[in-house]
Amino acid sequence: VIRPIFLVTDFGLTDTYVGIVKAVILGIAPEARIVDLTHEIPPQDVRAGAFALLMTVQYLPENAVVLAVVDPGVGTARRPRAVQMGGRTLVGPDNGLLSWAVPDPTAAEIIVLDQPQFWLPSVSSTFHGRDIFGPVAAHLACGVSQTRLGTPTDAMVTIPFPAPLIVRDAFGQVEQVTGEIIHVDRYGNLISNLRPSDLPEQAWVIIEHETISRITHTYQAGGPARLVALIGSVGLLEIAVPNGNASAFLEAGVGAPVTIKSVPRRRLRTPSPDPPPQT
Amino acid sequence: VIRPIFLVTDFGLTDTYVGIVKAVILGIAPEARIVDLTHEIPPQDVRAGAFALLMTVQYLPENAVVLAVVDPGVGTARRPRAVQMGGRTLVGPDNGLLSWAVPDPTAAEIIVLDQPQFWLPSVSSTFHGRDIFGPVAAHLACGVSQTRLGTPTDAMVTIPFPAPLIVRDAFGQVEQVTGEIIHVDRYGNLISNLRPSDLPEQAWVIIEHETISRITHTYQAGGPARLVALIGSVGLLEIAVPNGNASAFLEAGVGAPVTIKSVPRRRLRTPSPDPPPQT
Amino acid sequence: VIRPIFLVTDFGLTDTYVGIVKAVILGIAPEARIVDLTHEIPPQDVRAGAFALLMTVQYLPENAVVLAVVDPGVGTARRPRAVQMGGRTLVGPDNGLLSWAVPDPTAAEIIVLDQPQFWLPSVSSTFHGRDIFGPVAAHLACGVSQTRLGTPTDAMVTIPFPAPLIVRDAFGQVEQVTGEIIHVDRYGNLISNLRPSDLPEQAWVIIEHETISRITHTYQAGGPARLVALIGSVGLLEIAVPNGNASAFLEAGVGAPVTIKSVPRRRLRTPSPDPPPQT
Repeated sequence: VIRPIFLVTDFGLTDTYVGIVKAVILGIAPEARIVDLTHEIPPQDVRAGAFALLMTVQYLPENAVVLAVVDPGVGTARRPRAVQMGGRTLVGPDNGLLSWAVPDPTAAEIIVLDQPQFWLPSVSSTFHGRDIFGPVAAHLACGVSQTRLGTPTDAMVTIPFPAPLIVRDAFGQVEQVTGEIIHVDRYGNLISNLRPSDLPEQAWVIIEHETISRITHTYQAGGPARLVALIGSVGLLEIAVPNGNASAFLEAGVGAPVTIKSVPRRRLRTPSPDPPPQT
Repeated sequence: VIRPIFLVTDFGLTDTYVGIVKAVILGIAPEARIVDLTHEIPPQDVRAGAFALLMTVQYLPENAVVLAVVDPGVGTARRPRAVQMGGRTLVGPDNGLLSWAVPDPTAAEIIVLDQPQFWLPSVSSTFHGRDIFGPVAAHLACGVSQTRLGTPTDAMVTIPFPAPLIVRDAFGQVEQVTGEIIHVDRYGNLISNLRPSDLPEQAWVIIEHETISRITHTYQAGGPARLVALIGSVGLLEIAVPNGNASAFLEAGVGAPVTIKSVPRRRLRTPSPDPPPQT
Repeated sequence: VIRPIFLVTDFGLTDTYVGIVKAVILGIAPEARIVDLTHEIPPQDVRAGAFALLMTVQYLPENAVVLAVVDPGVGTARRPRAVQMGGRTLVGPDNGLLSWAVPDPTAAEIIVLDQPQFWLPSVSSTFHGRDIFGPVAAHLACGVSQTRLGTPTDAMVTIPFPAPLIVRDAFGQVEQVTGEIIHVDRYGNLISNLRPSDLPEQAWVIIEHETISRITHTYQAGGPARLVALIGSVGLLEIAVPNGNASAFLEAGVGAPVTIKSVPRRRLRTPSPDPPPQT
C-alpha cells in the first residue's frame, strides 16, 4: 500500500514549483496519491505554516506522509528533518515549521535527513522541496523505513505557541483571559489562540472595542449582521460576521488582541439576547 | 470500481479546509480519485455555486459523485441532501446550491442525509463539509447505495434560474430579448443567461451602450480589439474582447443587462462587417 | 501502465474550466493521474506558458503527457499539435507555446491532430482544451500511439528565446552581458534569461541602478536585507532579496534589463563583501 502524501508549502500556485515537486515525487513513486493542503502560506511565513499543520494533522489518514516546505533558510545551516508520530511522518526543514504539529517531540522519532541516495542526484542550494524533501516523501510513500533515511536526533527547533494571558481573582477564579488572532481565514473569520479550556463558563468576548455577549454554536446564531463568537471547526475561539467578513468589519487581522471577561453571576440574572453596552 | 469525486466549494485555497475534506475522504476511501472543479466560489455565494455546477455537470463521468459546499447556514435548520440523477450523485446542503444542476427534481432521487453512522463520529455545527458531506461522498465513492445514507424526500430548495424577458411584435415574432450577465470568467468574458433558443435568427447585441452587429463563432472573428458576441463553450451567449477583457473594457459585471434586438430584414440587404451606429 | 498527465493552462482556478477538462479526461481514462503544473499563466500570455514548460519539462517522468493550453487563437487557423520527445509527449495549440520546451524540433516527432475520433463528438470553436486536447491527452495516457492521433509534420511555430546581448573586448573576452527579466516568481524573485554559460567568471550584476558585487549560492548568503544574485533552481540568473521581495524592492518586473559587467582583475586584488558604489 502506497502512503498518501499531503503538501503544505508557501510556493503558491502561480509558478510551477508545486508541479515540479509533484513530478519529482511521481518519478520515484508513480502510484503516489498527492493531496494539496495549502500552497498559499504567505512567503517565508514559517509560523503560518506551523498553524496550517496544527489545524490539519489530526484529520490526516493514520499512514499519511506530510511534506511541509516554508524554508527561507534553504541552503544554509538549518537541517532537513523527518518526524514520525504514530503512523504519520512529517518531512521538512528544521526551522519550527513542524513544531506545532508535534505536541510532544519526546514521543516522536526525529531524524536528520542525511542519506543522499534518497535525494535527487544533484542537490541545489535553493530548492530542497524538489531535491530533498520531495524525494524523501516519495520514498516514505513507497514504504522505505524512516530509519534508512537519516540519523536519529533529539533536536528540533520549536516555535512557542502563543500562550493566552490569564488573570485570576483573589479566589483563583478566571477573571479575564487575553489572547490574540493567529489566523484570518477566507471568510474573514478571525481565529484566536484560545481553546475552550481557556475560557470561563460565562464570558464576554471583546475585540476592537466591540463586545460579544455570548459564545454561540453556529455562524447564524447571532442574528443578521451581528458579530458572533464561537468555537470554530478547528477547536479555537473565532469571531465571525454571519454572511459577512469579520476581519473587514472590525479592521482586525493577525495579532489583534481578544479579551475574554468572565461574566459576574449577578449580571446573568436577567438573560438578554442583546449585547451589553460597548466598553 | 471507485467512483470519482468532484468538488465545488467556496473554501478557497488559502486555508486548509479543502485539504482537510480530502484527508477525511481518503481516510474512508483511500483509493478515491478527487478532482477540484473550483473552490473559488465567492464566500457564501450560493448562486455562483449553482452556476458552476450547472456549467459542469454534463461533462462529468457517468458515475461521478459531486461534493458541493457553499453553506452559509451550516449548523442551522437547512438539511443535508444527496440527489441522484442517472449514475451521478450530488451531495450538499439544501439551500438551492444543487438546484440548477438538477433540471427536473421529479426525475431525480432526493434523500435527506440522516444516517450519522456514515459521518465523522463527532459533528461540528460549523464544518459539515468535513463532518457530513465529505464522509458521505467517500462512502458513495466506495459503492454504498444512496438509499442507505438517508430518507427519501420530494423537497428540494430551488433558486429560480434568471429568465430572459422576451418582447414580441404584433405577429408573435421576437422583437427584443433582455437578459443579464450571470458570470464573469477569468478572461473577463461576460457570460449571460441567454441560450441560442432565446435568440432571434439575426440579432444585434447591446451591452453598456455598445452594439455588436452579429453573433460570431470564435473569439478572434471580430477582428482585433473589437467586441464580439458568441455562444460560448457552456452554451450561453457571451460577450468578449479578443485578446482582451470585456468586463474591464465595458466596466460591466454580474447583473449587467444584455439586450438582443431582432434585425429587420431590410437592414440585412446590405451586409456589413462593421457594427451599426451605437445607440 | 497509465501515463501521468501534466497540465499547464491560462484557465485560472476561479472558473470550472480546468475541472471540466479533468472530468473529460477521466471520462476517457478513469485511471489517469492528472497533475497541475500551473493554471495561472496570465490570460493569453503564450510566452509565459512557454517559460513554464521550459522550466518544468526536465523534471517530468519519462513517460509524461503534457497538456498545454494557452490558446488565444482557438477556433481559427492555428493547428492542434502533439510533439513527442523521447518518452514524453506535449499536446497543445501550435502557436509557439510548446516551442521553448522542444529545443530541437528536428529531433522530435511532430503531428497535426486531425483524427476526430479521438476528440469529443461535438467540437466547439471556443474550448479545444475540453474538446480536442484533453481527449487526446487521455488517449495518449491510455497508451494510444501518437501516430494514430494525426499526421506527421515538420512545421512548428517557434517563439525565439530572448538572447542575451554580449559585448567582447579587443581580446575576445566577455566585457558585458545584457539580459532581461523573463519571469517574476511568487517570492518576487526576478528570473532572467541568463544562463551560467553566459556569465564571465567574476561579475557584477546591475539592475535598476543597484549593483550586486558577486553571485552567491543561497538566498541568505548576502546578509540581511541585501540584494543577492544567484543561479536559481531553474538554472537561470535570478535577483532576490533574502526574506523579501526583489520585484517590489526594485520596482522591476518582466522586461527589466539586467547588465553583467566582467570585473577587471585589478579590482579583485582586495576582495570585499561590500558592493561597489552604485552606478
